Amino acid sequence: MNKIAIIGATGATGLELIKLALQDGWKPSQIIAIASSRSVGKTINCQGQELTIQSEDALSEEVPLVVFLAAGGKVSEAFHKSNFGKYFVIDLSSHFRMNENYPLVIPEINPEDLKNDQRWICSPNCVTTITLMVLAPLIKKWPSKKVILSTYQAASGAGLKAMQELQKESQAFLNQTPYDSTFFPDPYAFNLFAHNSPFLNRDNNEEEIKIIQETRKILHDEKMHVSASCIRVPTLRAHAVSLYVEFQNAPTIEDLYQTLEKAPGVKLYEDFSKNRFATPQIAACQNEVYCGRIRKDTSCTQSFWFWIVGDQLLKGAALNAWQIFTLKRTHEAIHTDIGSNSSLI
Amino acid sequence: MNKIAIIGATGATGLELIKLALQDGWKPSQIIAIASSRSVGKTINCQGQELTIQSEDALSEEVPLVVFLAAGGKVSEAFHKSNFGKYFVIDLSSHFRMNENYPLVIPEINPEDLKNDQRWICSPNCVTTITLMVLAPLIKKWPSKKVILSTYQAASGAGLKAMQELQKESQAFLNQTPYDSTFFPDPYAFNLFAHNSPFLNRDNNEEEIKIIQETRKILHDEKMHVSASCIRVPTLRAHAVSLYVEFQNAPTIEDLYQTLEKAPGVKLYEDFSKNRFATPQIAACQNEVYCGRIRKDTSCTQSFWFWIVGDQLLKGAALNAWQIFTLKRTHEAIHTDIGSNSSLI
Repeated sequence: MNKIAIIGATGATGLELIKLALQDGWKPSQIIAIASSRSVGKTINCQGQELTIQSEDALSEEVPLVVFLAAGGKVSEAFHKSNFGKYFVIDLSSHFRMNENYPLVIPEINPEDLKNDQRWICSPNCVTTITLMVLAPLIKKWPSKKVILSTYQAASGAGLKAMQELQKESQAFLNQTPYDSTFFPDPYAFNLFAHNSPFLNRDNNEEEIKIIQETRKILHDEKMHVSASCIRVPTLRAHAVSLYVEFQNAPTIEDLYQTLEKAPGVKLYEDFSKNRFATPQIAACQNEVYCGRIRKDTSCTQSFWFWIVGDQLLKGAALNAWQIFTLKRTHEAIHTDIGSNSSLI
Repeated sequence: MNKIAIIGATGATGLELIKLALQDGWKPSQIIAIASSRSVGKTINCQGQELTIQSEDALSEEVPLVVFLAAGGKVSEAFHKSNFGKYFVIDLSSHFRMNENYPLVIPEINPEDLKNDQRWICSPNCVTTITLMVLAPLIKKWPSKKVILSTYQAASGAGLKAMQELQKESQAFLNQTPYDSTFFPDPYAFNLFAHNSPFLNRDNNEEEIKIIQETRKILHDEKMHVSASCIRVPTLRAHAVSLYVEFQNAPTIEDLYQTLEKAPGVKLYEDFSKNRFATPQIAACQNEVYCGRIRKDTSCTQSFWFWIVGDQLLKGAALNAWQIFTLKRTHEAIHTDIGSNSSLI
């Protein structure tokens, strides 16, 4: 029987991967749910079904169709060292994304980078994926001169614990009781702060570097202008991006709408007359990336603003990885006894 | 005895004006606190002192040194119609800001626009003021080519009721009880949304237009490139701005620091090694506008990012208006029996 393995199964992204697999027709017995020793033997309830957490040893008994790595960079690095070549791996961590030997894929944007003989595929950073779902179809037609973005990033990007902390800390704030935040250096309740990833150079923190470098890799444009300011806000699971694009030769606004209406995985969502646009609560738990507030910069005829909101755990992480798997199976025409729900792509 | 009048005394900004007056040595008996008929006769407790709310009729008995208008555009419009010329007015609403007969003043930036014979002075939009505190000293030295900003705006910009709603709605969200939001069209708890001001044209909502137009008026540069994306976030009383500036001829980063170290009312606040920068909770209730995360755009040698956070009710509204009054008194050398606390400027 065909199986899949998910390493990091108890994390926010791992749980979404399990949900996607179950929704796509996989049975619990076909999912090898792996997590750290603390969790081994525990059960996960997901969509009314139970899975028991196993250790990595479970992999020695069989070769699953794919191993999803959703447990962070260090786990991916160690898994690569011990197992490279043994499995088809979809790595959701950042560790190997910029390695030129491994493709970095958003199935709607650069499916051509997925080739048959690759054993290790990387899924991009959440902001990168969500932004490129809108940006890429546009700049394939109208190359950009500058891409400038400010982010509004949800707790989920830092995992389940961060989501729980935000809620506990907000409750303490409302009760006016003291709360020792252990997760982030800054208070999170009714507050916001620069993204908590370290500065790898003086000018960009790690998150900002990921957005710049991964965008260039996915779009195959090493010199592309991209610049980002990454901010963590007190929302739960959908990221928002305030995106400013200066085109080399600007399209009309009608051109932009026509292109985005056809862009796979993008949902146009705006009502200027009622001043209603996508919000993190609207985009949460949705597969599509929402886009609206498409507006001219009234000071510059070449530039437009876009407001983008996408579920960080779905298209920003688990869904994109699942789509890579689905695309790979289509490529290789692997015939299994389970169906593939094409609505996911 | 010299008196001052505050119209809109029960609002979030009005209450801050009363606090500033008391801190500056004014006695409750010198403050004519005016609000709508609903509030007349009620008392306000502020810093251990009591003030009784009066109606506008109180003005017929004496001519205060200044009337602060902090009750919105419609009240300012009506007051202008009935009273223009009778009083020295500082108008915190947006109604007359773009009227060429009335100056729009940030005392640190364009004090020269305050002339002796003016009877009606406007105080700018909160984002405009907070942003210009940092931007103006820089572009006076190094003119900008483009100014692009995304905002993270607190509840206080929509008044006390919005601040209370955010907390009540967050409590309901945490309790998983239903909550009918009456204030904003979108849910606010653990959510964010495009600024709720209406679109006056297809490309900018009213808040974005204010930022563009008021910036140009204050800096006396009608063609200046400014473009904004205004977003309301679930924080209480300090706005944050992710500011991107492309200079015509870029200064060095040292030049920028040297200029901002000397900029009045600006506090540099950053620690790149610890990844700590200003947050709304740090800037709340502070007079200074905080700035940090001054970083080169690594794709473009002419551009820099700035992270700005300032208290919306203080420098964004009440403090700036109070400083206009203080400056006006210095100009006119009005000798009163109360002191002026110069630390406020």
